[in-house]
Amino acid sequence: MDAFSLQGKTALITGGSGGVGITTAKHLLRSGASVALIDRNLESLGPVADKLVQWFKTTAEYETYLPKTEDDAPQEIPIISTWACDISDAVSVETMVQSIRAHHEKPLNILVNCAGYCENFTALDYPAANLASIINTNLLGAFFICQSVARSLIADKAKGSLVLIASMSAHIVNNPQPQVGYNMAKAGVIHMARTLAAEWAPLGIRVNTLSPGYIATPLTKAIIEKDTKLRDEWSSKVPMGRISEPEEMTGAIVFMASDASSYMTGSDIVVDGGYTVW
Amino acid sequence: MDAFSLQGKTALITGGSGGVGITTAKHLLRSGASVALIDRNLESLGPVADKLVQWFKTTAEYETYLPKTEDDAPQEIPIISTWACDISDAVSVETMVQSIRAHHEKPLNILVNCAGYCENFTALDYPAANLASIINTNLLGAFFICQSVARSLIADKAKGSLVLIASMSAHIVNNPQPQVGYNMAKAGVIHMARTLAAEWAPLGIRVNTLSPGYIATPLTKAIIEKDTKLRDEWSSKVPMGRISEPEEMTGAIVFMASDASSYMTGSDIVVDGGYTVW
Amino acid sequence: MDAFSLQGKTALITGGSGGVGITTAKHLLRSGASVALIDRNLESLGPVADKLVQWFKTTAEYETYLPKTEDDAPQEIPIISTWACDISDAVSVETMVQSIRAHHEKPLNILVNCAGYCENFTALDYPAANLASIINTNLLGAFFICQSVARSLIADKAKGSLVLIASMSAHIVNNPQPQVGYNMAKAGVIHMARTLAAEWAPLGIRVNTLSPGYIATPLTKAIIEKDTKLRDEWSSKVPMGRISEPEEMTGAIVFMASDASSYMTGSDIVVDGGYTVW
Amino acid sequence: MDAFSLQGKTALITGGSGGVGITTAKHLLRSGASVALIDRNLESLGPVADKLVQWFKTTAEYETYLPKTEDDAPQEIPIISTWACDISDAVSVETMVQSIRAHHEKPLNILVNCAGYCENFTALDYPAANLASIINTNLLGAFFICQSVARSLIADKAKGSLVLIASMSAHIVNNPQPQVGYNMAKAGVIHMARTLAAEWAPLGIRVNTLSPGYIATPLTKAIIEKDTKLRDEWSSKVPMGRISEPEEMTGAIVFMASDASSYMTGSDIVVDGGYTVW
Ligand SMILES: NC(=O)c1ccc[n+]([C@@H]2O[C@H](COP(=O)([O-])OP(=O)(O)OC[C@H]3O[C@@H](n4cnc5c(N)ncnc54)[C@H](OP(=O)(O)O)[C@@H]3O)[C@@H](O)[C@H]2O)c1
Ligand SMILES: NC(=O)c1ccc[n+]([C@@H]2O[C@H](COP(=O)([O-])OP(=O)(O)OC[C@H]3O[C@@H](n4cnc5c(N)ncnc54)[C@H](OP(=O)(O)O)[C@@H]3O)[C@@H](O)[C@H]2O)c1
Ligand SMILES: NC(=O)c1ccc[n+]([C@@H]2O[C@H](COP(=O)([O-])OP(=O)(O)OC[C@H]3O[C@@H](n4cnc5c(N)ncnc54)[C@H](OP(=O)(O)O)[C@@H]3O)[C@@H](O)[C@H]2O)c1
Ligand SMILES: NC(=O)c1ccc[n+]([C@@H]2O[C@H](COP(=O)([O-])OP(=O)(O)OC[C@H]3O[C@@H](n4cnc5c(N)ncnc54)[C@H](OP(=O)(O)O)[C@@H]3O)[C@@H](O)[C@H]2O)c1
Ligand code: NI
Ligand code: NI
Repeated sequence: MDAFSLQGKTALITGGSGGVGITTAKHLLRSGASVALIDRNLESLGPVADKLVQWFKTTAEYETYLPKTEDDAPQEIPIISTWACDISDAVSVETMVQSIRAHHEKPLNILVNCAGYCENFTALDYPAANLASIINTNLLGAFFICQSVARSLIADKAKGSLVLIASMSAHIVNNPQPQVGYNMAKAGVIHMARTLAAEWAPLGIRVNTLSPGYIATPLTKAIIEKDTKLRDEWSSKVPMGRISEPEEMTGAIVFMASDASSYMTGSDIVVDGGYTVW
Repeated sequence: MDAFSLQGKTALITGGSGGVGITTAKHLLRSGASVALIDRNLESLGPVADKLVQWFKTTAEYETYLPKTEDDAPQEIPIISTWACDISDAVSVETMVQSIRAHHEKPLNILVNCAGYCENFTALDYPAANLASIINTNLLGAFFICQSVARSLIADKAKGSLVLIASMSAHIVNNPQPQVGYNMAKAGVIHMARTLAAEWAPLGIRVNTLSPGYIATPLTKAIIEKDTKLRDEWSSKVPMGRISEPEEMTGAIVFMASDASSYMTGSDIVVDGGYTVW
Repeated sequence: MDAFSLQGKTALITGGSGGVGITTAKHLLRSGASVALIDRNLESLGPVADKLVQWFKTTAEYETYLPKTEDDAPQEIPIISTWACDISDAVSVETMVQSIRAHHEKPLNILVNCAGYCENFTALDYPAANLASIINTNLLGAFFICQSVARSLIADKAKGSLVLIASMSAHIVNNPQPQVGYNMAKAGVIHMARTLAAEWAPLGIRVNTLSPGYIATPLTKAIIEKDTKLRDEWSSKVPMGRISEPEEMTGAIVFMASDASSYMTGSDIVVDGGYTVW
Repeated sequence: MDAFSLQGKTALITGGSGGVGITTAKHLLRSGASVALIDRNLESLGPVADKLVQWFKTTAEYETYLPKTEDDAPQEIPIISTWACDISDAVSVETMVQSIRAHHEKPLNILVNCAGYCENFTALDYPAANLASIINTNLLGAFFICQSVARSLIADKAKGSLVLIASMSAHIVNNPQPQVGYNMAKAGVIHMARTLAAEWAPLGIRVNTLSPGYIATPLTKAIIEKDTKLRDEWSSKVPMGRISEPEEMTGAIVFMASDASSYMTGSDIVVDGGYTVW
């Protein structure tokens, strides 16, 4: 279906060097979008982006952009840019979004907010500073990036689609690992997205969320390779009997980013192998 | 993204001559699937299917199936079949599904259940017989078709994806029109899908639902063209300020039918312009 | 709080000889309401009601109704009546409700619908007739009794509060026992209640539901005393680590039946020891 | 029902001088609990508490505590204490909770967290500092007070019930007033409560939330008396056709605080006149 195409669009991806972020970048590129990768530090993002460029240039999609004969008009090839920013800092976010807009010279139609992290403390022992931090990044950070991208789109009189990665942890309480800070942040993200969706619907800006179950990103893999009991416990709680691959999140993301979801706003797609069903 | 492709798959579409069914058929065909259209009476379905065949043969997608040179191997072209069946009759459904399987000679990997109807009675005056009927079609019928397709898939040791059209009416209560029978049926459908998802996850059969807001199908259009006050009331309750086109449902359906949603089961996608957000 | 009192009110309790029904009857009586117990057959209901009367006459509450001196005005003592009716038969329900109204000579302000049952079939093998039956009782039956009580209240120009027992099975899918028919019925009940709540709010009739987790009723006890592995599996899935006693449901029922919930309608109270949280 | 009694229990009420807090205090007192009222500044709380004491001494409940004859053993009369604290400051909260424990000389079995506020900014213009503040009080503050009360209960090896006031704004997006900060905070509160419920269930500490619709507190009244158009818009969105009185929230609070809800944890009671149903 052509409606899934992102041809000619520009996408910001926060958490761009992370497990979900990098996989998302690949699939947005293959769908035709230019991507601005954002992460906390450029050192980790740089090599990731370089690899991404290498990879993209060898894809079948990339070849479709190349002129086949000498007379072919030059096509607009998706580009990749990288940006360092802590999304919990509203001022940095605003400045960066303006810079991305200037650099890409196109309206910023798509946001995929992957930046975020999880940490384990029991509620009784959760240090106040840690709680503030995780809320600042996972919840307030998600707000700031949405706010700045929406402002940019409005200045451009352009339409856009914002996709925020929440978690099944916004719907259920993970067991056995204690993570109250993460859970409350992610629940906040989903309802924040609904509120932004309502406010920005008249402006043509859609806002939706994705609630993944467990994903075998490098980080998660490291954990469950050491702790196979935890891996088995996690898997046994999923009707599908396994945790997911990052690629299994990109379908929902591309769908929500694209015009294929033109009437969808304020919604959440749960992709969790059935975890929340039990 | 290739993951959205339905190449080589076979899809059953109930309510196949209806507003959503026929649009779904088009998009499944364009995505590469063969389709078996099911409806209550063949008289209405026949002409619809004929038009669909005409339309499909003129699409760009269709041309990709045709041999370009004499030496090209003949490709498998998606086919269209039509079937009359009342989905509220479990025996007819079972027989029909077996016949479709035999006719298409392929596992029935996809079901899109669009059969269903709405009617307006205040709860105080709802005739018992009407309530039984609407539950029989909208809720039990949805179960029977899932059950038979799953049995067929299991016999084939094949994987499948079942998509059931529920409604935002499963989540909220429409206002002002009274429709308690419809609402309770659709709420039942969503949780039925979740239960089937859990039971069938180990078999590789995914089950998800779509909850549309108001759709401008021929039927709905007829209503709101006569009653413009109702149209305005409906639109004013939607953050996006309008009701949807049938095409706007097909992205979610193709996504859920395809491998792009391989880790998604027991979920519901709400596509309602933000209606349920307020 | 006086607001929890049911003094002078009349309550219908369906499933009145069942585990939850009988316990509910006790607590409604102690809160001051007269009760009409309804069940499928009078043989089982008769002895239950006799015991209930014996019990009530020995409670401290009962004594408050008795004249303390010879001059004391005779007080209105809560009464208990019994009725045989299959709630899935709309005509019987309507007739019975009228008879109860005539017998009690008071508006029927309270309904607690406990009638219902669960059965285990895998979805693949669920017989169509069984599915129809469980929907007829658990979902349509719930509708019919609400409809008749509401009609009776309207004829009386009286206000009322209807409480329907749904289940946590309306929210999650039980594991390991397969019970798709029950699950879809109970999910239907909750949204039906929401729809009735919206339609009847202007009439002063409130409608709410209770979603219990596992309850140690005689029936459930019999199952888990035989199958202690199942008991342990059930308990391990509950954060509170145990299944509940029927008494633990009555607080929510009395609260919803009473004026203490005067602004609550269309809501569901989940009392499940935290089951649905995980 | 005796199960609703709070005899001999000690309750903390944050936001104790606010519209919901003060009404809650009355009903907890009438149900037998001692109350520790907490608010941001003692100046406003002082007079409120004085009035509360006056009021309580004239209630029928109070008289039941007084010795009837000279020989009657002196009864334990509920007491009222007042405390100034900003709940968004974790250190102050911890200190205060310990002081309350010392002062009341009893385990702190009940918490009703009413502290919180709403403010209106469109998402595009929400100042970052305001967003941080509202999250700090409404979300983090709710966490800190729960954490400290739970620690205190554990030190006492006592059981407890924590009730957090969330809002229907955690479930839907209010219209027309823009309040994204409040909405995301309150959604976070509900899922935080669920997480705490799961972690603390083995310790005998229950955690539940209340989601009120619009309440005619002094603050709200001031708004809608000036803006009658807003009042009418609010009322028209409620199936019950009116906003609520603070008293209409206390039934749910007493129910959740008391042993009548002994098997209920991680749940949310919506008391909104049906608002979220539409
Ligand atoms: N993995 C799972 O199982 C799972 C499940 C459900 C939901 N999710 C969600 O999916 C999203 C992506 O997760 P992931 O697994 O890809 O995690 P990941 O590999 O850790 O990637 C997250 C990225 O976000 C960056 N980041 C963190 N805080 C930031 C900040 N304040 N500003 C800018 N960048 C920041 C991290 O940079 P640093 O490395 O420098 O910190 C990292 O590159 C997250 O929101 C996560 O909560 C993940
Ligand atoms: N249109 C909307 O605004 C809207 C919104 C939300 C959800 N939906 C849902 O979307 C689905 C499709 O709706 P639609 O708008 O496309 O409706 P539609 O145009 O009326 O099509 C429904 C089709 O289902 C058929 N059907 C009804 N009962 C059947 C039965 N027992 N067995 C077999 N076929 C049966 C109908 O045949 P007959 O014409 O012979 O009856 C009709 O062809 C329905 O489930 C509907 O509830 C629609
Ligand atoms: N027990 C649990 O663990 C649990 C958990 C969640 C929810 N619930 C729900 O709570 C409610 C009460 O359950 P329970 O445990 O008390 O069950 P129970 O002991 O089996 O009682 C149910 C009663 O309903 C009667 N009944 C069944 N179908 C009827 C019909 N069509 N018309 C009239 N009466 C009918 C039964 O009569 P017969 O005996 O003659 O059939 C029985 O007396 C049910 O709705 C149940 O689904 C129970
Ligand atoms: N009123 C409604 O329509 C409504 C609807 C749904 C939910 N709610 C919720 O119900 C709860 C009670 O609301 P209400 O209407 O009673 O509000 P209220 O009258 O404004 O009372 C709230 C009280 O909380 C105090 N407070 C605020 N921030 C605090 C902090 N950081 N530390 C300590 N105390 C603080 C306030 O003190 P100051 O006056 O000094 O700020 C005030 O006394 C709130 O959580 C509110 O969100 C209210
Ligand atoms: Ni669960
Ligand atoms: Ni709504």
